[in-house]
Amino acid sequence: MRDFLPKEAERMRYTEQVTRDLAQLYGYGEVITPVVESYDLLAAKSGEEIRKRMYAFKDLGGRRVALRPEFTASIARLMATKMRNEPKPMRLFCVGSLYRYDEPQYGRFREFWQANYELIGSSKPEADAEILMLTYDLMEKLGLRNYWLKIGHVGIIRGILAQENVKKEQQNVIMQLLDKKQWDEALTATREFGVSQKCVTTLKEILETRGKDVSRILKKIEENVRDYESAVAAVENLREITEFAKESDAKFEMLIEAGFARGLEYYTGMIFEPYVPDMDIALSGGGRYDKLIELFGGEPTPAVGVAQGIDRLALAVKKQKGSPKISERKRIVIIPIGEKPRARVLELSLVLRRVGIPVEVEVMGRTVSKALQDANRKGVTHAVIVGAEELKEDKVVLREMKKREQRTVKIRNLSQEILKT
Amino acid sequence: MRDFLPKEAERMRYTEQVTRDLAQLYGYGEVITPVVESYDLLAAKSGEEIRKRMYAFKDLGGRRVALRPEFTASIARLMATKMRNEPKPMRLFCVGSLYRYDEPQYGRFREFWQANYELIGSSKPEADAEILMLTYDLMEKLGLRNYWLKIGHVGIIRGILAQENVKKEQQNVIMQLLDKKQWDEALTATREFGVSQKCVTTLKEILETRGKDVSRILKKIEENVRDYESAVAAVENLREITEFAKESDAKFEMLIEAGFARGLEYYTGMIFEPYVPDMDIALSGGGRYDKLIELFGGEPTPAVGVAQGIDRLALAVKKQKGSPKISERKRIVIIPIGEKPRARVLELSLVLRRVGIPVEVEVMGRTVSKALQDANRKGVTHAVIVGAEELKEDKVVLREMKKREQRTVKIRNLSQEILKT
Repeated sequence: MRDFLPKEAERMRYTEQVTRDLAQLYGYGEVITPVVESYDLLAAKSGEEIRKRMYAFKDLGGRRVALRPEFTASIARLMATKMRNEPKPMRLFCVGSLYRYDEPQYGRFREFWQANYELIGSSKPEADAEILMLTYDLMEKLGLRNYWLKIGHVGIIRGILAQENVKKEQQNVIMQLLDKKQWDEALTATREFGVSQKCVTTLKEILETRGKDVSRILKKIEENVRDYESAVAAVENLREITEFAKESDAKFEMLIEAGFARGLEYYTGMIFEPYVPDMDIALSGGGRYDKLIELFGGEPTPAVGVAQGIDRLALAVKKQKGSPKISERKRIVIIPIGEKPRARVLELSLVLRRVGIPVEVEVMGRTVSKALQDANRKGVTHAVIVGAEELKEDKVVLREMKKREQRTVKIRNLSQEILKT
Repeated sequence: MRDFLPKEAERMRYTEQVTRDLAQLYGYGEVITPVVESYDLLAAKSGEEIRKRMYAFKDLGGRRVALRPEFTASIARLMATKMRNEPKPMRLFCVGSLYRYDEPQYGRFREFWQANYELIGSSKPEADAEILMLTYDLMEKLGLRNYWLKIGHVGIIRGILAQENVKKEQQNVIMQLLDKKQWDEALTATREFGVSQKCVTTLKEILETRGKDVSRILKKIEENVRDYESAVAAVENLREITEFAKESDAKFEMLIEAGFARGLEYYTGMIFEPYVPDMDIALSGGGRYDKLIELFGGEPTPAVGVAQGIDRLALAVKKQKGSPKISERKRIVIIPIGEKPRARVLELSLVLRRVGIPVEVEVMGRTVSKALQDANRKGVTHAVIVGAEELKEDKVVLREMKKREQRTVKIRNLSQEILKT
């Protein structure tokens, strides 16, 4: 796990704030759920890969708990319990740290941060489109360039397998293999599960069908799966969603991948992940999960959502030197000369902060020249030097660090003088 | 552990944002440290009470880890390692969730949030005073009334005990008892540790010495401890700190308590906690810890800090109906009439959001009257109704929900019309 020192921490918090502002713009109300949840809850539908990488342990009361590896199970729990009777649609946002015992690698850490958006209660394609648009909007607000959204639909392959009488658990095995891009192993597994030769041929075709020309690719998939009724419906659903997104004027590239699968077992419809060039990891991931809330004892409730990877987005922004819009702030130190003005310096610092000026007080008891040296090294913009002589006339010395210029100013004009330079 | 639904979550995030703004005003750079840390690190100096309530477990790699019960150990680790060579003073801020397996009670939870401010490298009294002022400023910014800071100094009692040759571990036992206000037990323990009768008498006097008349109380303590050299120095240090705070024009009430102790073992000087009437728990807590960084292998480094309890501050604000300054925001829904305008509605939502207007799209496929009913219930301020007829003239219907008035407006004027009403 990592520490973020001030510069990186600022980048992370900036990204988090952009996700929160976006939630507000789209009407997603924030909820905060605990980091520690019941193991059974978190394990219920997360998928084998994630299950075995959870930080699980017994608490002092003997309960089996784990650190959350993702947010959606907690949201589904809320929807099945405390928020059961809230009118639909519900738009919920949550942001925080998540935990998976993965091998650390580029962009993948054991403690990572996500911002989740869940649109609960609608099965309409514009709900899916809203999640895509929101993701597009986030990329834009972060100043990312050349990104694309990889989009698929779990209903295509699950539809085929279901019609071939492949059981849910067996389907899960195949989806996991596809998620890891182990296509050959996936095809071998389907054969073992006793599907027809036609099914294997269809799957093979599908796994090779991908591209950015959305309508052409969708047409090709549809032709491939024409004998599998619910797979055809899945393609039709995907077409509606992508058309809504395109017509919305959200300008982003889509890469349709018919064989695309995600690690989480609970997806039931459209799934997607955004990518940028030169980063081999998805920045975020989302999709539709219409059965999950029911699974936790709630009413049958359609839902679609996305988990935006805050770490990875921050990394992508850094990589692309996109605008993190962290402005050059003023940074002021106040330095007393000698003993007497020490208390007065504290008072002045309060006065300046009251008008929003960030102030650091010299608290090391150093000489002015030592303190100024240190201020230079730290990138301080202004020093206020407070001496007993000037104080008698209610004045202090204001020094602009870069210009190496200083002048005596009336205390009552000090904040104005700082703000205007 | 708790869930925070939107209203409470907003209150928490607002409080967090105030603490972050304050950090910026005082020049504290944010760092982010992990929730999961080495057990040994966290246990090193936290004190018995906290040690036995930690969420400790072995991770999948067999390492003994725990969920952090407080921030200061992590900061001390940073100062002893990655930030070892940073110029002093360092001002560091961190904010996040902490974990203690306590019995849940009013204002006390197993998962709770703190904002930490650490001023590292200065042993001067104005550094202590800065932490007090910052706490005062936070109370003011949150709009809290009638609060006071309970202030003590661990050097008073530890100074007496040290001069009586009471060992460090035995001192810790006594400080823990004092923290729990078990004064009789503490006095019994000192007798068992073999202190003189004079010492017991002095301690008794001291445990009863408290009050808001700062200079009178300090004088009284000083008289009581006059035979204990380092206790006298502690009182003198406390006098300097409180005088700096008073002269700084930070207007807050101080309650000096000579027998005041805090649960954490690492404090070496001034300690304090803010309180409000009718809440029997400290909102925050802080103090000086000059030996901790050394303990983690760093250079000997004086430091003083405070942990502001975000949950408790939010609770106090709610209790006092202080100004959480969460403004009445505009909340807009866009509703399509029938099939055709569904895509157009998505486009319009993007346009409005681009100028900062929060928009929710009707994604349930409901009739206008159903959707308006729902909007009313949710406190929506404006509805934009998009019908095929009006669209032909590039117009939509804008409805002000409270006034129950609606009018047709040009799409290009829509955002202005919303912003001005």
